Amino acid sequence: MSEADELAIEEPLEIRVADEALAVTMRTPGEDEALAAGFLLAEGVIDSRADVGSIAHCGDPAEPGFGNIVNVTPGPGVFLDPTRLATSRRGTLTTSACGVCGRRSIDDLLARCEPVAPGAPLALERLLSCVTRLQAEQPLFGHTGATHGAAAFSAAGELLASAEDVGRHNAVDKVFGRLLLDAGPSPALLVVSGRSSFEIVQKAAVSRVGAVVGVSGTTSLAVDLADRLGLLLAGFARGESLAVYAHPEHLVTT
Amino acid sequence: MSEADELAIEEPLEIRVADEALAVTMRTPGEDEALAAGFLLAEGVIDSRADVGSIAHCGDPAEPGFGNIVNVTPGPGVFLDPTRLATSRRGTLTTSACGVCGRRSIDDLLARCEPVAPGAPLALERLLSCVTRLQAEQPLFGHTGATHGAAAFSAAGELLASAEDVGRHNAVDKVFGRLLLDAGPSPALLVVSGRSSFEIVQKAAVSRVGAVVGVSGTTSLAVDLADRLGLLLAGFARGESLAVYAHPEHLVTT
Repeated sequence: MSEADELAIEEPLEIRVADEALAVTMRTPGEDEALAAGFLLAEGVIDSRADVGSIAHCGDPAEPGFGNIVNVTPGPGVFLDPTRLATSRRGTLTTSACGVCGRRSIDDLLARCEPVAPGAPLALERLLSCVTRLQAEQPLFGHTGATHGAAAFSAAGELLASAEDVGRHNAVDKVFGRLLLDAGPSPALLVVSGRSSFEIVQKAAVSRVGAVVGVSGTTSLAVDLADRLGLLLAGFARGESLAVYAHPEHLVTT
Repeated sequence: MSEADELAIEEPLEIRVADEALAVTMRTPGEDEALAAGFLLAEGVIDSRADVGSIAHCGDPAEPGFGNIVNVTPGPGVFLDPTRLATSRRGTLTTSACGVCGRRSIDDLLARCEPVAPGAPLALERLLSCVTRLQAEQPLFGHTGATHGAAAFSAAGELLASAEDVGRHNAVDKVFGRLLLDAGPSPALLVVSGRSSFEIVQKAAVSRVGAVVGVSGTTSLAVDLADRLGLLLAGFARGESLAVYAHPEHLVTT
């Protein structure tokens, strides 16, 4: 065996809204409430803390598999529309002349998500130190070599939330879900341990985060989206080097 | 910029069966027919080459986004049931006493997929040479640092199919979809460039592949599944080292 001699735990999680099953994701157990909140936020089913009444595991604790279903109860007077998930996932296919394309995916997101107002530019050194800090927040990866990490930071470089998961998207959902549930301060930067694809940038944009940095590369559609939304997007953050793909004006070197 | 100075192309692909939209996945364009076939195979919507009449892009070539929808026409006399996708994705939730759990996910898969009959044991050296060979089949990764690779090999170590994609699952679907469409020889080994999660082992099992090797780690559920199905599962295949997680008896050192 290698130095990473433990297995990452992977179990399905069913996310229910008002007792109706909406999605199943394979995830690392833990922070399930945050995962559910972050997933629903990114998909447009919820928009704010007030949309959520409570989130709890449901079922019989004596049954096997207890802990793998979470139910999200809407806030008082709130109706959560599960069809917004389908719309978000499929785009507006039935009415779209151009069918399915990246531009359309971006247009759909912009229809429910304004460009992110730029904050003060981030210092390159601070950004790189946040990337280093993420590594310290990945004990599971050190033990398993099979999990992804994500962390959100304030403009001052303060760690606001971090998570690890076998699913890349789940780790990001757990971070933004935790911040939503705790009504925490607004993050300025999302750092991810792997690639920054379209959906990672989407999740950051929905949570009004102005900068996304990954340790690996990115994709054409992620760059297009960051460009349209006004997000700083960077990758290959290793040591003191960085590749900047969109809105480099939000980065300053001192 | 780093040495990987190109962007991986990412665009949505809508997969339709008999003109009905079934799923949208973010993928790297290319081998879309194979991706659709492999996805439907893994999800249990199709079982064999005979289930597929034809697969073609649909829409107006003059419209933006053309090439991002593929329609799968069933073979003569074949009815493809799209609800099998939902069942596969959600498990048999409505009838399951134990709700959602990893054991149930494995039981569901075993209900439609027999354990894989072991072939002749694989030589460790051959297996490691296949891992090295995969790297040579990843030109996109070399240019972008943002794609995953997958390759299927015969028991003799012959490369049967390989693919790269921004999506880990897509790369595997493209490999098995290509083999299905070409009615190619049965592979004995799947090599993936990243982690081997539950769904990767599931895809291998559905395609009757007896061994899965990843360059990174694996998960508890992937190991449980490989164990139940009789698959060799190994990870951290780097240089001459390897971690074996399930059915090491299918591996021989000479």
